[in-house]
Amino acid sequence: MTELTDGSAARAPGRPRSERAEKAIVEATLDLLAAESGVAAVSIEAVAARAGVGKTTIYRRWPNKEALIVHALATAKAPLPVPSGASVREDLVELARALSAERRRKHARCFWNVVGSAEKHPELYARYRQVVIEPRRDVLRAVLQRGVESGELRAGLDLELGVAMLVGPLTMRAPMELFPEGYAEAVVDALLDGIRAPK
Amino acid sequence: MTELTDGSAARAPGRPRSERAEKAIVEATLDLLAAESGVAAVSIEAVAARAGVGKTTIYRRWPNKEALIVHALATAKAPLPVPSGASVREDLVELARALSAERRRKHARCFWNVVGSAEKHPELYARYRQVVIEPRRDVLRAVLQRGVESGELRAGLDLELGVAMLVGPLTMRAPMELFPEGYAEAVVDALLDGIRAPK
Repeated sequence: MTELTDGSAARAPGRPRSERAEKAIVEATLDLLAAESGVAAVSIEAVAARAGVGKTTIYRRWPNKEALIVHALATAKAPLPVPSGASVREDLVELARALSAERRRKHARCFWNVVGSAEKHPELYARYRQVVIEPRRDVLRAVLQRGVESGELRAGLDLELGVAMLVGPLTMRAPMELFPEGYAEAVVDALLDGIRAPK
Repeated sequence: MTELTDGSAARAPGRPRSERAEKAIVEATLDLLAAESGVAAVSIEAVAARAGVGKTTIYRRWPNKEALIVHALATAKAPLPVPSGASVREDLVELARALSAERRRKHARCFWNVVGSAEKHPELYARYRQVVIEPRRDVLRAVLQRGVESGELRAGLDLELGVAMLVGPLTMRAPMELFPEGYAEAVVDALLDGIRAPK
């Protein structure tokens, strides 16, 4: 009876054993990716050893190292919050704060390493942009687009430029460097109103 | 006589043999630094082997690997052009174009790797910022400061924020990704005038 109970308990809430394995695999991938050698340090063998699972457990879920890395990166980078839509400024501040808070994450360096390795691993980088980055940029583009439509932002605004002007100053520093208090708001206000003296 | 002539010739224009060695050492350091493992791939041994010099030749000039790396990075990153001073906009466009052109450089990835390794090599990163980055940011700060003094830019402008808003959008992409035509000018204009609709 005990055996059966244990077995049922282990299967019941969403197959916890397999979930535990997946979590360990993702965590091991991110740990390796955050190391100095970045993408070069990640192999199915190394992940299996670090996660304490067999290689077949990994291959059952991910066809190759690249798919595993992109999945792990997507797990580590939460979607951006859907902004409240009160005003363009409030929405942008909300998003800028979220971007700025991400620097504190344990695995911030993974992303730096993947972008730094883009030339060496162009397909991985392309897939990373498609799966992880573009959906996040879509949230930003939508806010800017709504602002153009509501008349808050310039007609004909280049949305890509707007996204770059917001994200650039919030991501350019080394992963460990935090921004000063109020930085996210300051970036948004400089972006909205510019730095030219009022006439 | 031939021997003497050759000897004089070899010594005459700025000790070419030692200059050749230095050039080879710097080049080898940058090649290693641009590789996937970044800073971890650079050792005095590896540089000596790649440059075809003895380790003592390196130690005669640089006390350690960190000093060599910072010197090599400073060599690879030319100083920013001194802007003409015609107007803040023209100066900023000139600097933004220079920053944007640097992506095409062979060794662009070195810088990405050093910043990505900042947590692991905090002293190297600090020295890199001090020797290579800060003098470049000084050029940008000076242009903004002049703009505030001339009344072209807002009084009380946060110079650090202004620098970040200019440099961020021009450096955030992967090293191999080029910017569209006119991007540098578009960044400067968005920075100066903002993206808010005129009232």
